[in-house]
Amino acid sequence: MGSWLEDRLLGAAGSVIDGWAWLSGKASAVVVNRAVAVTRNRPHPFSTFADYTCWQGLTDRSYLARHLPPADVPVQPPEADLRALFARPAGQALLSPKSTCLFPAFAQYLTDGFIRTKMNNVAQTTSNHEIDLCTLYGRTPDQARALRLGADVSGKRGRLKSQFVGAEEFSPFLYLPGTKDLSDPAFAVLDTPLVDDSLPSPRRDTLFAVGGDRVNSTPHTAMINTLLLREHNRVAAELEARNPTWDDERVFQVARNIIIVIFIKIVVEHYINHITPLPFSLRADPTVAWDAAWNRPNRMTVEFSLVYRWHSLMPDSIAWPAGPKAVAHDIALADFLQDNRPLLAVGLDAAFSGAAAQAAGELGALNTSAALLHIEDRAVSQARTNRVATYNAYRVAFGMEPATSFADISTNPEIAALLENLYGSPDRVEFYPGLMAEDRVEDSPLPGLLLRIVAVDAFSQALTNPLLSEHVWNEATFTPWGFELIGATSKLGDVLARNVPKRGPTPIEMTRPGWSYTDN
Amino acid sequence: MGSWLEDRLLGAAGSVIDGWAWLSGKASAVVVNRAVAVTRNRPHPFSTFADYTCWQGLTDRSYLARHLPPADVPVQPPEADLRALFARPAGQALLSPKSTCLFPAFAQYLTDGFIRTKMNNVAQTTSNHEIDLCTLYGRTPDQARALRLGADVSGKRGRLKSQFVGAEEFSPFLYLPGTKDLSDPAFAVLDTPLVDDSLPSPRRDTLFAVGGDRVNSTPHTAMINTLLLREHNRVAAELEARNPTWDDERVFQVARNIIIVIFIKIVVEHYINHITPLPFSLRADPTVAWDAAWNRPNRMTVEFSLVYRWHSLMPDSIAWPAGPKAVAHDIALADFLQDNRPLLAVGLDAAFSGAAAQAAGELGALNTSAALLHIEDRAVSQARTNRVATYNAYRVAFGMEPATSFADISTNPEIAALLENLYGSPDRVEFYPGLMAEDRVEDSPLPGLLLRIVAVDAFSQALTNPLLSEHVWNEATFTPWGFELIGATSKLGDVLARNVPKRGPTPIEMTRPGWSYTDN
Repeated sequence: MGSWLEDRLLGAAGSVIDGWAWLSGKASAVVVNRAVAVTRNRPHPFSTFADYTCWQGLTDRSYLARHLPPADVPVQPPEADLRALFARPAGQALLSPKSTCLFPAFAQYLTDGFIRTKMNNVAQTTSNHEIDLCTLYGRTPDQARALRLGADVSGKRGRLKSQFVGAEEFSPFLYLPGTKDLSDPAFAVLDTPLVDDSLPSPRRDTLFAVGGDRVNSTPHTAMINTLLLREHNRVAAELEARNPTWDDERVFQVARNIIIVIFIKIVVEHYINHITPLPFSLRADPTVAWDAAWNRPNRMTVEFSLVYRWHSLMPDSIAWPAGPKAVAHDIALADFLQDNRPLLAVGLDAAFSGAAAQAAGELGALNTSAALLHIEDRAVSQARTNRVATYNAYRVAFGMEPATSFADISTNPEIAALLENLYGSPDRVEFYPGLMAEDRVEDSPLPGLLLRIVAVDAFSQALTNPLLSEHVWNEATFTPWGFELIGATSKLGDVLARNVPKRGPTPIEMTRPGWSYTDN
Repeated sequence: MGSWLEDRLLGAAGSVIDGWAWLSGKASAVVVNRAVAVTRNRPHPFSTFADYTCWQGLTDRSYLARHLPPADVPVQPPEADLRALFARPAGQALLSPKSTCLFPAFAQYLTDGFIRTKMNNVAQTTSNHEIDLCTLYGRTPDQARALRLGADVSGKRGRLKSQFVGAEEFSPFLYLPGTKDLSDPAFAVLDTPLVDDSLPSPRRDTLFAVGGDRVNSTPHTAMINTLLLREHNRVAAELEARNPTWDDERVFQVARNIIIVIFIKIVVEHYINHITPLPFSLRADPTVAWDAAWNRPNRMTVEFSLVYRWHSLMPDSIAWPAGPKAVAHDIALADFLQDNRPLLAVGLDAAFSGAAAQAAGELGALNTSAALLHIEDRAVSQARTNRVATYNAYRVAFGMEPATSFADISTNPEIAALLENLYGSPDRVEFYPGLMAEDRVEDSPLPGLLLRIVAVDAFSQALTNPLLSEHVWNEATFTPWGFELIGATSKLGDVLARNVPKRGPTPIEMTRPGWSYTDN
């Protein structure tokens, strides 16, 4: 077998990640380097610009790179037929033993920042190809400017625009109540939120003016952005107090340095740690990337924009918690969209606590809620438009043996039979359905090939962020206070505790309480 | 001393670059890695965006990176006083024992492709930060489109627009004769040539429609672009003939892959080899960069845009050769501008032969022609506006000892005295005057600090081009025929021989005939 996943416990027990390495912090470096080494380094020769390698394909970042060249897959079952593979039987949500709803909430917010496929042309992207928190700060300097308070007066330097609802700070509302008129003419440069044009006024009135066009998608994505907004403004206040000669611009820019890196710390130390099947915690150690052969310019791939469609993680309804202006109630998934009223009603601590208190769905086939099935159609179609190669081609590209039987893909006979009926041969299975049909890796919320692809792209892109690079990762960039704050932050709960009037009793975790690893 | 320059002969003789390494081709890798290792790797923490490290400074490529943070230099003599340091005594041009005029011609064309400081804001750039031949193809896909013939008909696929004057192919003229009206409405997206607004019609009529706004600067820069235009169209014809199913787009894109890499080969194997004091030839071996810790995203620096102001390389007049429509004559430097008539009159082979037959000026103080002295003022001013640190700060940053006396900078007593009079102390000497005042390195046309900076940026940026990367550098990217053509091309003369009706007797070299290395 020999892959980093299969021998994870062997490694942890001694042969690869020995006691010394673990104590010295080197275990993370071993895991990261082995995870990335399963496939080819960037730059990728292929992109969605052309079927062959060329200068514009290599450099025009409005196109996506690709791990494998385009291919014509032999069988493309009608999307309606494929729904049988994805659809969750009514009322029979399969729940994850490991994940809370904070996991899909964070995954969605994170990936909305860099998987930014154009809606009208799935070969193109508006991504900056970096973890830059464009969800909070916008994609461009102009958008950042519109979101900034921009007041170079003492006590307000470096802040993002915000409003207070009671003791709770939120982004400003984007529209004037009951209208589609912007509340602030500066917001005209922002990307228009991806919401229904016919969204009724009570919901539209609560949309936030933010950096990302998908931040308002659900109260959960808005919740995470709100947390980072508060942390930005809190950090800006601290920086201003500690550096009274700094102007608005410098306070803003250095606060952004700190917030982006705090976010990357959470990506690795909270989110990736939840994803891996490893019973020990990886650290976000920038030094692992400094000499790595995989430290190459980041570029989103067409495959990466397909692996993150984790619709089955969503239960059929969200158990919304009680708060100052609301009693606890279930919100059907179809209503958990484009509406920040639930968040405003209960406040940030209750919203996070609710997400961490509810089990997520299990990722995989036969578990997508009816409310989201139409999005599975879009994923299938996106892969076909971009001529993504077969599932087996990607198994090979990421260091796995090709599946020679349907049982190699799923040990669930119902799923294997559905695949056989749709494709006839394992070699004909399409990338996206195959990816989602696989068994989950023991102790991970993800199936095997998907886990490998996520690991490669997560590590090789997060840890090569310019703010973590050899001559930037230091106290001069973040201030000594900021560098210490970064070091002291690993999880969303660390940030939440600093930014709510009162922290509740629920631990803010992506892993369910009582979870234990198989061999621990 | 211990630097790669000082022990070049030691190395060549045995201890560092031994016989085995030389035979196996490893000598180039040793030299390249040692040259780049004299200073810090990218990403640089500082940029012209702000005086501190921040996300926009790290990522907004309309600003320049900087090797050292901004500093306030203590003494800024009036530019008029500094002219005494640069000015060539009338009629006493110091000629280079090593370089022909092909050397400055190529240096100017090369650097006009990526040192693209904005004229109205010297902190900003329009550079793509890569060797991408934007001089030939434009900076943007729109500009490339305007320059392409775009005819998807057999026999014309993948070509750039051109015209024939007799048997000689040139770019189309940009303007209709006697007017400022574009000859082709598509040319409206091109960057306007940086020429005098009052340029008289006979000269304006001969400006070419090209990718770079500085290609028409002199008949020498236009000559090099013309050579690459012909090679592109020749390669496109070959690709079309060998791949009859390819459309216009593919022929163009693959021809561009080949031409960019041919150009990089010439940069390393012709131009850099002329610059180094090494008596053996470096090879453009892409593999040296594949695992290198200096393989990081390219970014032009504020210092790099100052080190390439080699005005003293120009003699006071250019000895223009005879040709079908012209007799040999001298063109004063002030007239050798924005006028392609001399090139059109003699054709490409005569123009190259003339450049290779005339000695260049010697780079350094007291040798800038009166016609170019006003540009030295601009260089001094550009460094000051960008608050570039002192000359000694850069000596230290690039691994040299700081100068403790003026004799450490120049052994010419007149130059040392001028510096002392201007600055009082070696620590106060500004970057640009110090750089140009130094003694030349034995057997190199460049002085020491300048040579180090050029070597770092040349190797670490040229060899990290995406077309040379590990999974792109192969026959699939260039076709087997194209890959062989690249391998067979080292020098400008190789390309010229393929693209003129008749090659003359003059070798097309940057090094003067009869030049020999000191210890050879």
